[in-house]
Amino acid sequence: MAAAARKENEVIGKLERLGLSMLEEIKSEASPSFTTALRSKGNIIYDEGVGYIRLGDKTEERRFINVGQARKFMQTVAIAAKCKKFLRENSHTSIRGLYYQLKFSLGEDLDEELFSEQSESNPLVEDLEVALNVKREDLNLNTDRKGVVAGPLVLKDKFGGEETIIDCTKQGRSGWMIPSDVDNGMEFIEVDADYVLVVEKDAMWQRLNEDKFWKKENCILITPKGQASRGCRRLIRKLASRKLPVYVFTDCDAWGWYIYWAIKTGSMNLAYLGSDIATPEAKFVGVTMGDIKDYEFLGQLTINAKEVDIKRAEEMLTYDWIAHHKDWVNELKTVLKTKKKLEQDALQGPRLSFVGDYLKEKIAKRKFLA
Amino acid sequence: MAAAARKENEVIGKLERLGLSMLEEIKSEASPSFTTALRSKGNIIYDEGVGYIRLGDKTEERRFINVGQARKFMQTVAIAAKCKKFLRENSHTSIRGLYYQLKFSLGEDLDEELFSEQSESNPLVEDLEVALNVKREDLNLNTDRKGVVAGPLVLKDKFGGEETIIDCTKQGRSGWMIPSDVDNGMEFIEVDADYVLVVEKDAMWQRLNEDKFWKKENCILITPKGQASRGCRRLIRKLASRKLPVYVFTDCDAWGWYIYWAIKTGSMNLAYLGSDIATPEAKFVGVTMGDIKDYEFLGQLTINAKEVDIKRAEEMLTYDWIAHHKDWVNELKTVLKTKKKLEQDALQGPRLSFVGDYLKEKIAKRKFLA
Repeated sequence: MAAAARKENEVIGKLERLGLSMLEEIKSEASPSFTTALRSKGNIIYDEGVGYIRLGDKTEERRFINVGQARKFMQTVAIAAKCKKFLRENSHTSIRGLYYQLKFSLGEDLDEELFSEQSESNPLVEDLEVALNVKREDLNLNTDRKGVVAGPLVLKDKFGGEETIIDCTKQGRSGWMIPSDVDNGMEFIEVDADYVLVVEKDAMWQRLNEDKFWKKENCILITPKGQASRGCRRLIRKLASRKLPVYVFTDCDAWGWYIYWAIKTGSMNLAYLGSDIATPEAKFVGVTMGDIKDYEFLGQLTINAKEVDIKRAEEMLTYDWIAHHKDWVNELKTVLKTKKKLEQDALQGPRLSFVGDYLKEKIAKRKFLA
Repeated sequence: MAAAARKENEVIGKLERLGLSMLEEIKSEASPSFTTALRSKGNIIYDEGVGYIRLGDKTEERRFINVGQARKFMQTVAIAAKCKKFLRENSHTSIRGLYYQLKFSLGEDLDEELFSEQSESNPLVEDLEVALNVKREDLNLNTDRKGVVAGPLVLKDKFGGEETIIDCTKQGRSGWMIPSDVDNGMEFIEVDADYVLVVEKDAMWQRLNEDKFWKKENCILITPKGQASRGCRRLIRKLASRKLPVYVFTDCDAWGWYIYWAIKTGSMNLAYLGSDIATPEAKFVGVTMGDIKDYEFLGQLTINAKEVDIKRAEEMLTYDWIAHHKDWVNELKTVLKTKKKLEQDALQGPRLSFVGDYLKEKIAKRKFLA
């Protein structure tokens, strides 16, 4: 059996066991219930040993016979039933599509805000993900996709009953768009690269793609297009698991730092996915205020830090796992002292292709902030 | 000579003539100047004859010897010089990259907000676009790209010194990502479709792509992922110019209507691109409040209209070109009366694949709002 089909049956099995155990409870005249990990702040920890944000050991029980929980319990069970149907039909939908399926079947007034694709954490679906130890992508629920890849990576995409080979060296100016789900029905055929370079901005990715940076450097060039989607983080994690070094290249500002740390350690709202999406091996290649020492022209290309950058730098200095990194502390203190920041685009100042030279040199000399 | 190279030389020629005419003026001791179309509100018209928003005939002159204009004039000339260099080098960059090139060369304090990729209209670059009658994409300036395609469309992408064939029937779950520039170095090899379907939301596009809607219907399936980018609008325009009918499928709400009308008639801020990006032939296929008559279940899947939807509906009723369309007037009045709206996702209520049946039926019966 193909890996994808095996995984699918495994998830259906989990959904069925959840249902059967509730049925047992009903038969024995107990309240149906299920257990899920507690996802509130008190149970979210940065685990220094593994290097990412994960949930602790606290659990909570959802019970049907509970005035405060009955309605949500019923909705979660209805979601589980729908997802089982989607898996059997081999069809995917979005959280919003799920909302309308439920509204159609239950006929009741569901809180539509709970099923907004903008609200990254949908508590009802999260309950299921955590209780079953699966990702929503494994339940045939698509999430917002974003991000693009070029470079020596070949994938087999089994989708809608067909197989397509995706060769990321043959995507022209566009690149291959990272889908919501890079696990089910997606197979790495060839990963023949020396490293992975993650570039914050799409505009910079296009610059490097035009210069065939990925070809010259034999690397996989990814842009998350800002904050990395679940699918993008998962792809980076999977590439890192194949022992490819991962270098992240962002602006030197609040948003850039956040993008890097979210890739490296995961994030609070996705703590329950911890090991699936975090890449603690990731290293920060730039751009840094420290670069001004080596690339003098950058000194005249800084721009004023905004209040959000200052606040964020102060905040980061209070985090244990950052305070341990001397390089990061220096970097953040420089921003606080100078009240200046630096964008990755500034590396195009002297000539458009300079950014590639900069990256080659920093990677060759291993000038990273760990 | 290939079409792309011809176009490039043509643009370089225009830039050179601009420079030479300024040089002539300087030699004859006149102030260097250039003429551009006035882009302020008073010169933006909806041209009922052609069916799109365009600039009127008013022009204005930019002069170097003018206290209020000297600095901006100099910056515009510097931008023209940079763009000529980019064209000669066959390299592209973003507006932000251009900003840093200027900051590096001019060494002066440029207003960085003027070069923000978020600010859709960059007045300095627009001056050049309008004065030369070219798009910024023709000046090797990349714009934000967004949107995805699947279906019977094959393109040749000449980029970074290589040629790539892009077959939009072989893009798996991801689709082909629409680039910033679909003109220079991009060639349609095969366009063997019966029509173009533009779907507002990426999630809905993925649903239809999974069901191979484009294969069953022999159509080109595009999602702009919300508001259409310049590249996406330009692609739709180019497909329409090949006599393919264009149907647009959005939510029935303020945002959905705006997306449709921007594709059809263009928009105020891009009035200067008028005929290049507007597709007056586009027809609105849904979703509409009127659909509830034919698809009764939709009645229970409406959601509350927000203030922005109500305000927008009222506003649209005051536009001449909408007030002429009886169907649109009825539709908007229904929203105002019921204070309800309808999302395209609601069509997944009875079953995930229903949305395809709906589209097939509406297109076959030509039930459009014109």
